[in-house]
Amino acid sequence: MSRFFSNKYSTLVPYTPGEQPKDLKYIKLNTNESPFPPSKKVLDAVKCEAGSLQLYSDPECSALHEKIAELCGVAKGEVLSTNGSDEILNFAFMAFCDKERPIVFPDITYGFYPVFAEINGIPYEKIPLKDDFSIDANDYIGINKNIVIANPNAPTGMYMGLDDIERIVKSNPNNVVIIDEAYIDFGGESAIPLTKKYDNLIVTRTFSKSYSMAGARLGFGVANESLIRDMNTIKYSTNPYNVNRMSQGAGIGAIIDNVYYMNNCATIIKNRQYTVDALTSLGFEVLPSKANFVFARCHKIGGEELYLELKSRGILVRHFTQERIKNFNRITIGTMEQMEALIKEIENILEGR
Amino acid sequence: MSRFFSNKYSTLVPYTPGEQPKDLKYIKLNTNESPFPPSKKVLDAVKCEAGSLQLYSDPECSALHEKIAELCGVAKGEVLSTNGSDEILNFAFMAFCDKERPIVFPDITYGFYPVFAEINGIPYEKIPLKDDFSIDANDYIGINKNIVIANPNAPTGMYMGLDDIERIVKSNPNNVVIIDEAYIDFGGESAIPLTKKYDNLIVTRTFSKSYSMAGARLGFGVANESLIRDMNTIKYSTNPYNVNRMSQGAGIGAIIDNVYYMNNCATIIKNRQYTVDALTSLGFEVLPSKANFVFARCHKIGGEELYLELKSRGILVRHFTQERIKNFNRITIGTMEQMEALIKEIENILEGR
Repeated sequence: MSRFFSNKYSTLVPYTPGEQPKDLKYIKLNTNESPFPPSKKVLDAVKCEAGSLQLYSDPECSALHEKIAELCGVAKGEVLSTNGSDEILNFAFMAFCDKERPIVFPDITYGFYPVFAEINGIPYEKIPLKDDFSIDANDYIGINKNIVIANPNAPTGMYMGLDDIERIVKSNPNNVVIIDEAYIDFGGESAIPLTKKYDNLIVTRTFSKSYSMAGARLGFGVANESLIRDMNTIKYSTNPYNVNRMSQGAGIGAIIDNVYYMNNCATIIKNRQYTVDALTSLGFEVLPSKANFVFARCHKIGGEELYLELKSRGILVRHFTQERIKNFNRITIGTMEQMEALIKEIENILEGR
Repeated sequence: MSRFFSNKYSTLVPYTPGEQPKDLKYIKLNTNESPFPPSKKVLDAVKCEAGSLQLYSDPECSALHEKIAELCGVAKGEVLSTNGSDEILNFAFMAFCDKERPIVFPDITYGFYPVFAEINGIPYEKIPLKDDFSIDANDYIGINKNIVIANPNAPTGMYMGLDDIERIVKSNPNNVVIIDEAYIDFGGESAIPLTKKYDNLIVTRTFSKSYSMAGARLGFGVANESLIRDMNTIKYSTNPYNVNRMSQGAGIGAIIDNVYYMNNCATIIKNRQYTVDALTSLGFEVLPSKANFVFARCHKIGGEELYLELKSRGILVRHFTQERIKNFNRITIGTMEQMEALIKEIENILEGR
């Protein structure tokens, strides 16, 4: 760090994104991208917006918010879109947490939560997952602290039912509860309808996974208008034009083509079942997943070793070094061809062990 | 604000962007957009990137940074691109300022600087412009505080020579000096070469104005590698994929077509001269501008009145309410046709006064 860097970041460890290799053609099952291309409506919208690139994007994202509101069954004022869902998460941390309002999340979850807390000087506490890697809702009942829970959780893929979510939200009425639904479209039920009933609930979503738009950087949050207004204060104090013209257009195009994307999600769910069955036959323990990835380990081979073996054979999966999960790998669900190639390589790797 | 909003923002007043009307077809001379469309290379690049939207953008922006480095005559590691130049400015405020390291800027300048300071809890001090609305470099010599100066300044359009910039940078070796060059391509000389000589200088730029890409949200900073690394720490702790695929592609396309854009800048400079002459003939005082806008007032009509009269006739300009400049309007330089229409309407408005 330079001699000018603020001391307040002395302990800050930035987030490490998954590998984005430029050198080789890998089967990329490491960053939970969709294997399906964007729809024609998205391509048309992007092309159209590109022609007016000399003009600022709408800072209010009016047309996009209307479409999102329609999709989610909420009012336009209950929506705020951002430059990827990382940004709406950061806005929520900034707006509602501080030294006096700490935040709580599971010990095994999206690795960015502690980073958002650190950079904003927010104290945080990790609650261990149960031995089966599920979240125990009881650990979050009436704790009187802000809470963020990914549902389904990452990298486990495990899902918590809406009853448990509601119990957590209801029992912490003086704190915000953020439910990060990046992976909700792969078999879970969204908590968005609960935002009508509870003024302390924020649900965040992304177009990166189920809407094949990781490269467009579009996320959003749904909450009651009062919370959205606060997060807008953060937006207008950091980056008012945070969502560019092309991504706004792409989001609208994607929602118009919702059926295409929901069919893709159904295909992913089918391919996930194939992958779970095949891995289980090979002796893997696979956590029950409602996401577009599975989290699996095998007693015959270490997590890092399997990751490296697969990488040397042209398949990327994601390995984590945290002690509790170091023998697992997170494997994105791709096309059937990709999953068959994965299973074949794993068979080869395990042969004779 | 909601009952959950952090108290630390109790005095925060967000930035107000210029009007982006959706209702009517205005001649828009209020947000310093380019009147020229993006080049074909930009459109091609966007179309190409849109086809791979399901994949994350390169978080390192490698190809884009190479092109920017080439354009600016610096090394790739001395560049950091962001979601508009507001983001690189915010990164610099976050990285290098804090309660013990305040920041200083002119009283009349880009209205976002005090907002960046407020939201990050950074004390700041405003130094008044001289009576002729120029910045007195002597006010910034050896002040031992971080400094941000827009050059050319906004909304005045007035330019400070590189000699003065260098004196300021050199005399504050233990503080960072940020030179915001959003408007440098319209007649000024960039301070980027000075980043090789001084480890405390950050130059920020945008593709919004001279590169006709306000809607793509692409800005960047140039500084020595050590400062860039610190700002990368902020980026990887808030939004690692901050620049989407399409905007990265568009930036590369624009730099390849640099000649087209620099010709457009030459046209703007020509149209600016026409506008200055015409306004002067009509009795306006026009500050000397090296930007794609002029800042002008007329003793025959108040600033707000002229703004409202023009708006009612279908022309938008930008009016500010700050006491010192309330009789001015900031007028973006557009095409010759737009400027002729503006002058004609002003003639009509002033007739008989």
